[in-house]
Amino acid sequence: MKTLILISHPHFEDSGTQQFLKTSFYSLDDVKYQVIDDLYAATNAIDIDKEQNALRDFDRIIFQFPMYWYSSPASLKQFMDDVFTRNYIVAKHALKDKELGIVVSLGDAETDFQAGGPEQFTISELLRPFQAFANKSGMTYLKPFVVNQFGYLTPSEKEKLLVDYLAYLSATMPLSLANREQWLVQRLQATKADKPDDQQRMIDLVINAIDDQQNNVESLKEDVKMIRDQEE
Amino acid sequence: MKTLILISHPHFEDSGTQQFLKTSFYSLDDVKYQVIDDLYAATNAIDIDKEQNALRDFDRIIFQFPMYWYSSPASLKQFMDDVFTRNYIVAKHALKDKELGIVVSLGDAETDFQAGGPEQFTISELLRPFQAFANKSGMTYLKPFVVNQFGYLTPSEKEKLLVDYLAYLSATMPLSLANREQWLVQRLQATKADKPDDQQRMIDLVINAIDDQQNNVESLKEDVKMIRDQEE
Repeated sequence: MKTLILISHPHFEDSGTQQFLKTSFYSLDDVKYQVIDDLYAATNAIDIDKEQNALRDFDRIIFQFPMYWYSSPASLKQFMDDVFTRNYIVAKHALKDKELGIVVSLGDAETDFQAGGPEQFTISELLRPFQAFANKSGMTYLKPFVVNQFGYLTPSEKEKLLVDYLAYLSATMPLSLANREQWLVQRLQATKADKPDDQQRMIDLVINAIDDQQNNVESLKEDVKMIRDQEE
Repeated sequence: MKTLILISHPHFEDSGTQQFLKTSFYSLDDVKYQVIDDLYAATNAIDIDKEQNALRDFDRIIFQFPMYWYSSPASLKQFMDDVFTRNYIVAKHALKDKELGIVVSLGDAETDFQAGGPEQFTISELLRPFQAFANKSGMTYLKPFVVNQFGYLTPSEKEKLLVDYLAYLSATMPLSLANREQWLVQRLQATKADKPDDQQRMIDLVINAIDDQQNNVESLKEDVKMIRDQEE
């Protein structure tokens, strides 16, 4: 599966969140990224045909941005207005059956985003225009990936964020426990090849442990189901 | 009351809808407008202080735009990202107690915008980011003014659109029957001054008729209330 990250950020190089995420997606072969702001800075008028064609190769397209006034920064909207012509989206169905993911980072706490909270509306509600776009394009709208106040995260929270983010970019969706473990095993196998023998054996042990755990979970699920069925 | 219309449209001069609306707001002294796209076309970096100060004079600010991918065109977002700094909006509360109106024109039928319809989401839902902005700024969010497929309107529908639009720009909100009639009388009185005597008398007759009707409505309301009270 091939993933394209379209990043909208007026100061990408200075953003701690963006640079942190960038270190991670470098490690995935099938993930490419494009900073939209760089695209526009390099030219007065972007090459629409080229951008339209570039998207065709990918199965998952991610809009990644910090939340600015309850939406993306203007550059993503400019890209959408320019590249996603009605002909391309509605007549040619060029993005049909692809997945649309949203990676949005928040400066304010995610818990503020709810009715009665300071921001009044949920992230789901505020991202409706993107969901409506996915609907119109025939894309599958993925559950948005929210980076909640990156600056306040502890090192171990950042580590977890990284793994979750990598899974969001490349695991099969929806991100069930089974899909997540399958993805983890694939990742471990991919990193095995160029490691020394003893490390390869260690990775095999981890993979076996994950498989065992998966089998345990499956068996536990069966037990729970049986008990429930008897209760009824 | 002073109103500023901030128009976001990449081809304002070629838009039938926008040019039609423009003919009308020319007639109101206390209404000013700014095409954001012209502002950016004229310079590489807009003067943020100047734009921030310019907004202070107005009581009602209108964002006017065609719906592009379920939001405004990029230029309005660029303006918001540039001019509505956190300091200006959150620390200085510069727009507090002003009104925020949205005039949005649709290419697709308004009835398509509902759960189960082709567009799945309502206009209210899609405009949430603007509502959230009004909430954060301490502005009063006015009920959006939707221009539904202008190209298909009959001449008499266009006439009604024009009057409704003028009221949206300058009448006291919410637009109750009383507020609407009060506004209509004010508009008639404003146009009276430079008219010949016979036309002035005609306008006075219309104003009296409106007043009478208003009194009739008030009296009818009283009657209905009395009947209802007796029923309980």
